[in-house]
Amino acid sequence: SNMFKVAVVGGEGIGPEVTAQSHRVLKWFAANRGVPVTMREAQYGIIPYLATGKVLPEDTVEAMEEADAILWGATGGPETKEVPPAARKAGSLLSMRRKYDLYANLRPIVASPALADSAPLKAEVLRGVDFVIIRELTSGIYFGEPRGIETLADGQRRGFNTEQYTTNQIRRVARAAFELARTRKGKVCSVDKANVLETSVLWREEVIALHKQEFSDVELNHLYVDNAAMQIVREPRQFDVMVTGNIFGDILSDCAAMASGSLGMLPSASLGPVDKFGRRKALYEPVHGSAPDIAGKGIANPLGSILSVAMMLRLTLDRPDDADLLEKAVDTALANGARTADIAEAGATRLSTEQMGDAVLSAL
Amino acid sequence: SNMFKVAVVGGEGIGPEVTAQSHRVLKWFAANRGVPVTMREAQYGIIPYLATGKVLPEDTVEAMEEADAILWGATGGPETKEVPPAARKAGSLLSMRRKYDLYANLRPIVASPALADSAPLKAEVLRGVDFVIIRELTSGIYFGEPRGIETLADGQRRGFNTEQYTTNQIRRVARAAFELARTRKGKVCSVDKANVLETSVLWREEVIALHKQEFSDVELNHLYVDNAAMQIVREPRQFDVMVTGNIFGDILSDCAAMASGSLGMLPSASLGPVDKFGRRKALYEPVHGSAPDIAGKGIANPLGSILSVAMMLRLTLDRPDDADLLEKAVDTALANGARTADIAEAGATRLSTEQMGDAVLSAL
Ligand SMILES: CC(C)[C@H](C(=O)O)[C@@H](O)C(=O)O
Ligand SMILES: CC(C)[C@H](C(=O)O)[C@@H](O)C(=O)O
Repeated sequence: SNMFKVAVVGGEGIGPEVTAQSHRVLKWFAANRGVPVTMREAQYGIIPYLATGKVLPEDTVEAMEEADAILWGATGGPETKEVPPAARKAGSLLSMRRKYDLYANLRPIVASPALADSAPLKAEVLRGVDFVIIRELTSGIYFGEPRGIETLADGQRRGFNTEQYTTNQIRRVARAAFELARTRKGKVCSVDKANVLETSVLWREEVIALHKQEFSDVELNHLYVDNAAMQIVREPRQFDVMVTGNIFGDILSDCAAMASGSLGMLPSASLGPVDKFGRRKALYEPVHGSAPDIAGKGIANPLGSILSVAMMLRLTLDRPDDADLLEKAVDTALANGARTADIAEAGATRLSTEQMGDAVLSAL
Repeated sequence: SNMFKVAVVGGEGIGPEVTAQSHRVLKWFAANRGVPVTMREAQYGIIPYLATGKVLPEDTVEAMEEADAILWGATGGPETKEVPPAARKAGSLLSMRRKYDLYANLRPIVASPALADSAPLKAEVLRGVDFVIIRELTSGIYFGEPRGIETLADGQRRGFNTEQYTTNQIRRVARAAFELARTRKGKVCSVDKANVLETSVLWREEVIALHKQEFSDVELNHLYVDNAAMQIVREPRQFDVMVTGNIFGDILSDCAAMASGSLGMLPSASLGPVDKFGRRKALYEPVHGSAPDIAGKGIANPLGSILSVAMMLRLTLDRPDDADLLEKAVDTALANGARTADIAEAGATRLSTEQMGDAVLSAL
């Protein structure tokens, strides 16, 4: 069949609240625009843990296995401490990234003019900001072995982790960056710490080699990670596509969040390899986490999750026009003054999570 | 004798230019305020390399060995490529940090109201920003073994580095943070990635244990490094003392540079352990690097280096009043409109490096 399958997994904290709204939006596209998609809801976290002893129960595993795309909420609610670390680790977001080999994590950073007032950066610095961070998501120090905490001969303890990248791991994510740049402004900035780390020396060599072999039409430059963090704040509009490893991407994308105005606005897509049928597993999630402090209050910003549906329309469902339509609807809602608490100026009316969903749907 | 010895090493790139000005300032304090200090100039980089085959020749090693404090410029000029990597590595900044065990790198981030206009952050976000990042400087992934690039059985290559911290390494830098916080607003924020890295789990455990044992009067909180990067941009005034490991500190301090208005303004101190005579080797340097693009033009901002002399007055020379005097002179010069190119608004007069030195000296 040519129906796409989407697993909808709200997860924990504010995850279920924001995902309820993005799920409504996806249903709207199925019903009103004929987007060929079936949706299956599944649970993650404390609720299935109490019922089944697993944070990621069989039913959810099955839903995710058969899915082309996963619409993911967040993990790590306030109830996290009730779940023992081993049970949590077995079904963690990190283990899923690895299991589905979701190596290319795309995090677009787009400054919305409507939010310039509530952003910490000056309006003239934000103007025209539109870039994508591609973070490698299946290797690096997140997964490197050996790792652990050992006791030394003198009675001290020592913690250790391994940062690592292989040639192929570097090349495939660099390829994703070059290909994306070709559809945009044609510029890639690769970020590493090659003045200190051998891992980064190899990273830089391989990016340069691939560029020379296949992508010499794309403009390539390199920044050290410390400088990149500064440049993202100083002059974010210089970037088009930025590609980097797992831990650097983690830090830089949160830093860049402020160049968009608010973390609550940011979507992401995590893409696996293309299989022999041309399919590619993908997980879509807002960049914000579970935000335990505001969970259950119905005030979280659902736009990060809703804009993740726009990425799904573009990257999995092959509906670029519908993706544009949804992004425009979000712009319209914002231009009409729709604001959740995180993006509201002092004194302005604050919409609930659901009301923000309404605002986007009525703009559609 | 109760004279302090200072080695003045300008180094490469803009290092000699900015150090010439901070050296003048230190001489002023010796001559006019009776600060008991002798200064010995020494060379580093391409010039001694061409003469002696070493970037760090014997004479410079000797000057640094006998010094209580080193006033350091920068390494890595445009001529770097003429020096073979092995010769460069032997005398690198990293090897000196290690040799003198300069484990506590203090990077104060203070927003100067005079610079609010040229900063990327909004004036209301910058107002009142005044915190210190303490970066561990002798361990972590910078120095961890094993490290290298190996060829795998399938012909791929793999780069690897080791992130690591021992109990003692964590405790001594955390102690520096708690002690500093007691002289300030009494708040420490420890930054790690304990949700992913065992090294960070140990880091957090040890910081908590030390806090409980000896510093429970200090307020302690913890942030994940990604969140810390965002908070530094979003609301930098929430911080008093931030303590973190080597690579996270490298990234966060450049990110924080923008919360001060300009990288060119930032001083740093790197402190070693206190010996049995109560002495403590220290290296003072601006946070900016060698800036090869503007080297030799006489336009670099010397304030990062001059403010490093203020840190030296406070931390090595035990002259807090003179440190205050110098910091006030810098404020006065800025308030009078003195601007080098990096902090000048469009159309404003730009001082040369030397003229900025003059402006500070005439404010003294
Ligand atoms: C929750 C955490 C493990 C995760 C990460 O570090 O990758 C998060 O920060 C992210 O960016 O998705
Ligand atoms: C030049 C480089 C090795 C150095 C570092 O990474 O420590 C620099 O970025 C710094 O922050 O002092």
